[in-house]
This record gives sequence, C-alpha cells and structure tokens, in this order.
Amino acid sequence: MEEEFVVTPWEVRGRVDYEKLLKHFGAKPLTKDEVALLEKYAGEVHPLIRRGFFYAHRDFDFIMKWHGEGRPWALYTGRGPSGPVHIGHMVPWILLKWFSDKFGLEVYFQITDDEKFYDDPEMKLEEATNWAYENALDVIALGFSPERLHLIIDTKDIKPLYPIAVRVAKKLTWNTVKATFGFTDSTNIGLIFYPSLQIAVAFLPTELRREATPVLIPCAIDQDPYFRLARDIADALGYPKPSTLYSKFIMALTGESKMSASNPDSAIYTLDDEKTVRRKVMNAFTGGRPTAEEQRKYGGNPEVCPVFHYHMLFDPDDASVEKIRQDCKSGALLCGECKLKLHEKITKFLKEHRERREKARGKVDEYRLSVKLSK
Amino acid sequence: MEEEFVVTPWEVRGRVDYEKLLKHFGAKPLTKDEVALLEKYAGEVHPLIRRGFFYAHRDFDFIMKWHGEGRPWALYTGRGPSGPVHIGHMVPWILLKWFSDKFGLEVYFQITDDEKFYDDPEMKLEEATNWAYENALDVIALGFSPERLHLIIDTKDIKPLYPIAVRVAKKLTWNTVKATFGFTDSTNIGLIFYPSLQIAVAFLPTELRREATPVLIPCAIDQDPYFRLARDIADALGYPKPSTLYSKFIMALTGESKMSASNPDSAIYTLDDEKTVRRKVMNAFTGGRPTAEEQRKYGGNPEVCPVFHYHMLFDPDDASVEKIRQDCKSGALLCGECKLKLHEKITKFLKEHRERREKARGKVDEYRLSVKLSK
Repeated sequence: MEEEFVVTPWEVRGRVDYEKLLKHFGAKPLTKDEVALLEKYAGEVHPLIRRGFFYAHRDFDFIMKWHGEGRPWALYTGRGPSGPVHIGHMVPWILLKWFSDKFGLEVYFQITDDEKFYDDPEMKLEEATNWAYENALDVIALGFSPERLHLIIDTKDIKPLYPIAVRVAKKLTWNTVKATFGFTDSTNIGLIFYPSLQIAVAFLPTELRREATPVLIPCAIDQDPYFRLARDIADALGYPKPSTLYSKFIMALTGESKMSASNPDSAIYTLDDEKTVRRKVMNAFTGGRPTAEEQRKYGGNPEVCPVFHYHMLFDPDDASVEKIRQDCKSGALLCGECKLKLHEKITKFLKEHRERREKARGKVDEYRLSVKLSK
Repeated sequence: MEEEFVVTPWEVRGRVDYEKLLKHFGAKPLTKDEVALLEKYAGEVHPLIRRGFFYAHRDFDFIMKWHGEGRPWALYTGRGPSGPVHIGHMVPWILLKWFSDKFGLEVYFQITDDEKFYDDPEMKLEEATNWAYENALDVIALGFSPERLHLIIDTKDIKPLYPIAVRVAKKLTWNTVKATFGFTDSTNIGLIFYPSLQIAVAFLPTELRREATPVLIPCAIDQDPYFRLARDIADALGYPKPSTLYSKFIMALTGESKMSASNPDSAIYTLDDEKTVRRKVMNAFTGGRPTAEEQRKYGGNPEVCPVFHYHMLFDPDDASVEKIRQDCKSGALLCGECKLKLHEKITKFLKEHRERREKARGKVDEYRLSVKLSK
C-alpha cells in the first residue's frame, strides 16, 4: 500500500511523493530542455536547479524565450511571516537573488501578514506584522538593493495591490477556492479572499510598467494552487500568465519531508546562536547506520539524510557534495564527521547572514513598494 | 394570504412590510423616547425623523446618552456607486448633514466601488471608480467642509481601512456571511470579503482617534445585516458597537417600494434636465382616482402616493405637507396640481444642488481620507 501524504499551502503531512504531487497539481517536471534554455541565457545553471532541488515548473520555457526576445519580465516570491525565518526558507530566496543578478531583474516580494493572521487563531495582527518586518531583514540580507527589491507587506502596502486583487476576486467563486484550497464552512472570509492578493502580485509588474511584464515565481511546490488559478484567469484580465519554478520542501533535521514550526529542533533559524545550531546539527536524524561498525561496513543512505540534504543545499562546490555522497555510501564518512562539516558550512553562512541582516535593520521601509510609489 | 417581499442589500422586491422587516432583522422601532432624547440634545427633530421616514434603530438611545456624557462620536454612511445619484439616495445624506451640523460631528462616507464592481457582471472597475468620483460630488454638494467629511473610495482609500478589515474578516466565517447575505456557491470571493470593509468603517474613528468613538449610521433598513454583524463582533475586537438609524425606502415614481436603476423613469436623477424632471413628475403614479370627478368626490390616498411621498421628503414645512395630505384626502387637490407643486420644489432643490455640485468638481481628493492622512 502506498504511503499517503497531504500537501496544501498550509500543511505538509506524510512522506511526500514529489512525482505524484506534480501529476496531481498538473505542473511539469523540469527537463534538460528547460535547463539548457536557462544555461543559454544565464551562462550557467544554479546548483539548486542542477541538483534537482527545483524540479518542476509551469511555462519556464516560455519566460526564457520571452527573455530571449528582449522583453521585460520580473521575479516574484513571498513569505508567510508566522515566526522567525529558518535557513530552509532562505533556499528559494538564494535562487531568487541569483536570477535577479543574472538577468538584471526586479523582485516583487510579498510578505503576507494578513494570511498568517487569518490562518492562526492565536496570532495577533500586530505580531504577524512585526514578524513581517523581522523576516524582511532576512530577505534584504541576501544583498538586494532597494532599486531591485520591492517588498509588499500586505497590511502596509495594500494600496497598489488592492485594485488588482479586486479584479482577481471577481473571477474566483466560493466553489473554485473551496475546491482549490480545501476551504470549509468555518473558514474565515479573510482567508477566502486572500488568494486574490497572492495572485494579484503576479500581475503587479504589468500594471506598474503599463506593458506586459510576466513574472517568474520560484517557490515551493505547495504554492502551485495559487498560481494555477492565476494562470487560469490571466487572459481574461489582460495580463500575461505567470511562469513558475517549483522546489521540493527542505527536509526537516528530524527527517520528515518538511520543517515544522511546531518543532523548533526540526529547523535551524537564522537567529539561532552557535550553541543551538551545533546542538541541532549534531542531534539531526541521518541516513546512517545504528553503529559506526555497520556504517563502515554497509555505508549510509544520503538520499533520506537531512544532513546530506543540507550539504547539497548550502555547498556550491559540486565535487565536494559528490565526495560526501560517495564517502557516505562507501562507509568512509561517518555521521559525526559529516555533521561537523555541515555545522562549519552553516555557521559560516549564518555568521555572514546575521551581519548583513543587522545592517538592514531600520531600512525595511526603503524597500517597501508603496513607500517608493508614494514618493 | 400575505403579500411576499424580499429585502437584501442588493435587492428589494415586492411591497415591503416595514414592521415585519424590522422584526425579521431584529432592529427596534424608533419610539417617542428616542426622539425625545434627540430633541433634548439637538434642540429640534429633523422632519425625516418626525415624519417617520427614519423609523427604526439599534442603540440610538445609547449614542444619545454617550453624547450627553460629552464623549466623542462620529457619523458613518455610504453609497454603492453603480450609476448616477437620484434624489432618493440623497434623502439619508440630508439627515446626515443635519446630524453633522447639529452635533458638530465628522462624517465617514464610504463609496464602495469594489462592491458594485463585484455585484454587476457587466461593470468594469474603472466605471465603478468613475461613478464613485461622480457620486462624491453629490455628497460634497450638501455643503460639507473637507474638515468634516471624510470620503473613503474603497479602491483608492483602502490603506487606512485594510488592517481593520483584516481583523473583522478573521471573525466572520463563510457560514456566517452565507446565512446573513444569502451568498451561494457561485458568489465571487470579492463579494464574500466585502462585508469586512463595510463593517471596518464603523470602527475606523476609534482607530484614528485612539479612543472609543462609536458611530451613528443613518441608512436604509436593507443595510442592517452588515451592522448587525458589526455589533456582534465589536466587543471581541475592542471597539464600541455602532448605533444605527434606519429609513424606509424611497418610493419609486412608478409606485413600487423602491426606485430601480433598471427603470430610469422610476427615479429623478440629480443630473436630469428640467424637461426630464417635469416629464417624470407629471407621469408619476399617484394615489389619486381615475377621474377628476371621482377624485373631487372621494378624495385620493396620499399613503400609497409617490408624489405625496416626495412632498413629505422634500418640504421642510410641516403645515404645508399636512395641507397637501388633507386636500388630497378631501378631494380639494387634484393630482395634476399636486404634481406641479412637487415639480416646483424638486426643480428648486436640484437647481441649487447642481450649482454646488459643479463647484465641488476637482475637489474630491481634498475630501478623501487617505489623502488627508498621508499629509
């Protein structure tokens, strides 16, 4: 019997079968044809794509060809500010930054404090908005300039978004959003309306530039339902369809398919201190054998190992990652040593990140779209 | 068998039984006790209340006593900009202006271009927003200063409203709005969210002044479902409950319970030219007899007569209105003459109104709340 799993924008449960999920959503696997197109225009392919972490798409080929014709496009992704950012959240943003740099693109980054407030009965709106500002620091810390990065904190930057969201909302019925998002009779009307806002950002660059400006949306696969709807209604609204590039989920340190906010040990947060990072890495679930002896004899299984997963995500050097994989499988590399290597990489990443993050403090408003538009 | 009727914020059908409607909604009839309270603080009672056109309320006594304690309050009403304003629309606004003058109150006036766009499959958003600006001229023409009147055109002034609407939306489920407004599976998610915005304005003065500032909402009885919900959730959100004052509908010139946008002859629009006004008044349905002879013999019925209804609404002189009523009933006044009297009153009202309306052109933004807040 097949293992069951559930993936919605608000929940990932069970061990995810990514191919099955793709089929269910109706998105396409990213093939060597699309990757070749990317390489043609970018000159190289980012490791997160090369290594299959970003593995699916809608119309990625379309937007590459659009770029090839010299036409304008933009990037769009977002963050639900339910709490602190963990390094898993940052992985798609790293790719976002890469695209922005390689193609000289503006980035529309939505921070959905309204949605997180709607979704969590215990959350106060002020809390969600505070998290939005805190999380924005992590985005800015990736090195974006205020010219390139446009932050949209929903409750603060609603003005340019709302008229587009209104047009979107008229196209979506209760029936449609109920079926798409699994809403129930007791879903609040904020969450019911919210898809209009997430979809609206996909059309915002076209509205602001007053010419067709499709977006590429790099995000996790669970966001596909929003953008499938966006693509369904784009034509009728006179906007170009958004293209998407979907990642798998970041494996939890505990070995589950996705990190969970309810278990802080399942993820490494950008503000975890060194001691905490070390503890979390050293306590992580692995694909290793119960004893060092067995590990040396039979080797480990990097495919189910979150420690290897993180090496894959954070080590830009293909040879280094491949060596870890082989040494794990051969039994030459034991889990303790492998964890220490990872700890070193993450500590280095976080140290630099936190310095840049603190430099961004107090500057969030310079990046906010509506602040810029009102000038 | 009783005659059936339907009243929702989007539809009035059949001959309305106002007492039954009140009972159905659960609002209270306006009694001499409340009117006496009003007279105590205002020094007089406006004819529209004295003559029973405003006939019901929720907590009108509460807000009078609140005023008696010297505490701050404000006025709130609105307009759905689906087309041009007719003089029926203006009747509650006339009372609004009276309250504002008598009590020195600020007025929050919401113009719901989003709602009208959602509700009409044929309407474009630009059209609804254009109507919002056009209709705003009719409101300003009543003589409001920009200090007293705060216009909120939803798609333009969403910024101060949205964070409140978000808190409201979290408190309202699909179940609740479905039952309250009769939404169906094919209702669009814009209309589903919209009640949050109409309710949010009731809490806006408290938010802006940072102290409990309840509102009095003079409006037609069909708006009660919104404000019943507003009152249900006010406590939980830490806002004072809004008070309401409900009018009956303006009788159509054709004799139905409410004017209808689909039949332009049922209403007199503020921009109708003199010839059109004359034609509409002279062609109006009346409570008179088929022949002048019968009218002289048996008298007419002013209670079912839209012509008398308009005398009642637009003639401030009680004695004059009473004379028309008696002369109609006695048969001394024939319909033709009565219509000419009405035509004279309306023509005078419209002439002055249109002059003030044109003076307001180009000044709408001075009245818009978010424009004022951004200064």
